Amino acid sequence: MRILEMKVTPCAITDPPLRSAFGLHAPYALRSIIELVTDNGLVGLSETHGGTAVLHDLELARPLVIGMDPAHLTSLEVALDGRQAGKPGSGSLPGGYLEQSRLTLPTLIFGAIEVACLDLLGQYAGLPLCDLLGGRYRDEVPFSAYLFYKHAGLGGSDGFAGESQAAKHRNDFLVRQALSAGELVDQALEMCARHGFQSLKLKGGVLSPEEEVRTILALREAFGPQTPLRIDPNGYWSVETAIKYGRQLEGVLEYFEDPVSGKANMGQVAREVNIPLATNMCCTSFPEIPETLQTGAVQIILSDHHIWGGLHNSVKLAKICQTWNLGLSMHSNTHFGISLLAMTHLAAAIPNLTYACDTHYPWQVEEVIEGGKLEFSGGSLKVPDQPGLGAKLDQAALAQLHENYLRCGITRRDDVLEMQKIEPGWKLRFW
Amino acid sequence: MRILEMKVTPCAITDPPLRSAFGLHAPYALRSIIELVTDNGLVGLSETHGGTAVLHDLELARPLVIGMDPAHLTSLEVALDGRQAGKPGSGSLPGGYLEQSRLTLPTLIFGAIEVACLDLLGQYAGLPLCDLLGGRYRDEVPFSAYLFYKHAGLGGSDGFAGESQAAKHRNDFLVRQALSAGELVDQALEMCARHGFQSLKLKGGVLSPEEEVRTILALREAFGPQTPLRIDPNGYWSVETAIKYGRQLEGVLEYFEDPVSGKANMGQVAREVNIPLATNMCCTSFPEIPETLQTGAVQIILSDHHIWGGLHNSVKLAKICQTWNLGLSMHSNTHFGISLLAMTHLAAAIPNLTYACDTHYPWQVEEVIEGGKLEFSGGSLKVPDQPGLGAKLDQAALAQLHENYLRCGITRRDDVLEMQKIEPGWKLRFW
Repeated sequence: MRILEMKVTPCAITDPPLRSAFGLHAPYALRSIIELVTDNGLVGLSETHGGTAVLHDLELARPLVIGMDPAHLTSLEVALDGRQAGKPGSGSLPGGYLEQSRLTLPTLIFGAIEVACLDLLGQYAGLPLCDLLGGRYRDEVPFSAYLFYKHAGLGGSDGFAGESQAAKHRNDFLVRQALSAGELVDQALEMCARHGFQSLKLKGGVLSPEEEVRTILALREAFGPQTPLRIDPNGYWSVETAIKYGRQLEGVLEYFEDPVSGKANMGQVAREVNIPLATNMCCTSFPEIPETLQTGAVQIILSDHHIWGGLHNSVKLAKICQTWNLGLSMHSNTHFGISLLAMTHLAAAIPNLTYACDTHYPWQVEEVIEGGKLEFSGGSLKVPDQPGLGAKLDQAALAQLHENYLRCGITRRDDVLEMQKIEPGWKLRFW
Repeated sequence: MRILEMKVTPCAITDPPLRSAFGLHAPYALRSIIELVTDNGLVGLSETHGGTAVLHDLELARPLVIGMDPAHLTSLEVALDGRQAGKPGSGSLPGGYLEQSRLTLPTLIFGAIEVACLDLLGQYAGLPLCDLLGGRYRDEVPFSAYLFYKHAGLGGSDGFAGESQAAKHRNDFLVRQALSAGELVDQALEMCARHGFQSLKLKGGVLSPEEEVRTILALREAFGPQTPLRIDPNGYWSVETAIKYGRQLEGVLEYFEDPVSGKANMGQVAREVNIPLATNMCCTSFPEIPETLQTGAVQIILSDHHIWGGLHNSVKLAKICQTWNLGLSMHSNTHFGISLLAMTHLAAAIPNLTYACDTHYPWQVEEVIEGGKLEFSGGSLKVPDQPGLGAKLDQAALAQLHENYLRCGITRRDDVLEMQKIEPGWKLRFW
């Protein structure tokens, strides 16, 4: 089997005005949809981050992808990672490729192409993708409710998809403002009623730590102690703040996600606060793991196959977590069903997935796969039985989402800029 | 696809009187051949260690294997490992299975079954096994010449396969004595002339360290500095001996394999001798890795898919080695072509295989796969293109090798006992 064609379609998906320490989500989030077409007529799907940097790197990778056997992933990984150039086995590259074409994001690009190749392999083999990763360990994968402080509105823009969608969702948590503890509880109750999530994650670092602790305690009050709670200030709390407010949340939080920035700071908080610390920020690559373990910075890794170099590498990360007794869960950015299915297959194959996965999925109303939005049941997604990922592209939806991209004018994520549009002079701040 | 049948055939393979620190190889080495037959008529092959303990554990595993989907390996691994019993996903086990049937060797048994399942999956998918492990990175896999001090003879016994085979090999390195530096050099020259190996490993801990160092220096003299050399005293040198003679071999050895026993002792030698230390003894499981890294005991892991829980786990071990900048190669016991092919597929998929693999294969004259012995070219084995492992059982050979097993009376390896037969009162000793 050989890859004949690689289609990359930049898309923009309507995204509500969600807040984080970084600022405000723009009306659209960018994603890149990848289709790999083989000489035997199969189409493998993947999605990854959007924006010009990613699109540029995908073009740099194209000469290696066209003509490759989708099974030969290790060779592609080594070839994309210029550090390993010249080692045995990289001899089949187009002449001078590595010297000319160093990628900015080799791990992310490899991960994006790997998922599409594994979709192809699964289809070719007649095996669901999880069965290429060591095999299905669970039949459904639990996700958590991802709660955001937000402004009123669904995102999108006048005349774009957003407006018609917003009309449908006018009284919905998707549209309503949530900038206080009470509004957040309403958001959580509604999201859980709709999707059945059994655990709650609050994106923090937005309001004052006092208000965010108040929100967590209000969620505890509303949902009771059987519902695990998490908060994620995205590294924008100071060590002092994290210790002070972390201690108030001992016995309340399931885990404390990136309260502070950097391994040394995380290690300090870990020693002072009796809650496991989780990260998708202070350790996001294999070379960082040894120092992360040495500093005791983290007790739980929030993996992300987009960031960690694909699904096989995420399975390897899971083995490292098991070996060093780290907990494991999954991080999420705004995404379509393609990534949700990839996450689901991965989670299905990992025995030591110790926490429900994050997902932004409930915040999106558009979908790029046939059949529309995937549905959670009891907060979980069923692992597909079909070969590969188990999804096909809806080409009409893809065209619309690409049209969104062309019209919205956004080429890279800039949450600070968006925030300044509604609050001039707004700046990133450490609480 | 479901597994309907699991055939386990104990075999005894003619093995020459090879010496190690443990004593003497018996006239036969024991192996267990596993055939898994599926409802769609495929047969998956594997081989692992022999002897009654392994056979007993394979029988304990049988109720989990029969009826399983060979793709669902993670579930089998968790189920065989009683430590993980009761976690989500192990609910499908036969009632009370784990309480009744705790395995002595869960990781070894899982590895044995995993290889046969991956052979099945590869055949089912139409993919060579390496392409289920991340994909072929190299087309041929280098092996090293595994040199042994030995007594005269080919192994086997009167009336068994050994005798007729010995006649064919009378003047061969397989039969000749090698108990001095000069005889070892002759063995090495002949083995390399026949198979083309480009690096040499001497099994040590047999003669005095002075004589073994003399042998290494004679090999260096005969082969020149371009041929990497290794010595493996199997942990039977004292720390003092290892430091003293290790220093004499600085600049001569490619690596120093298990000179001493235990992580603390290895760490001490590592600090005193400027040669990378390799092991297949002081770190043989994932839970040991953190302490191994902390003690600085080892710079190179000699992996072994039989020991480390199969091929997927060996790929994960390779990622750990890459992450912590450890070298990686492969350990070998006496084996047939089935294990040689499994090792070859594994090595093909691992970019960071930094040294030629060990193999006992040149020391065996019998084979259990169709087509007879696999052939090295330039010391390397070509990675098969056929689906799965790329081998079928020769049922007549299997019957003969099982007959060997029934007649030889050996039920477990005991090199001390064998040594005492030719040297009464011989005991294990630390040099």
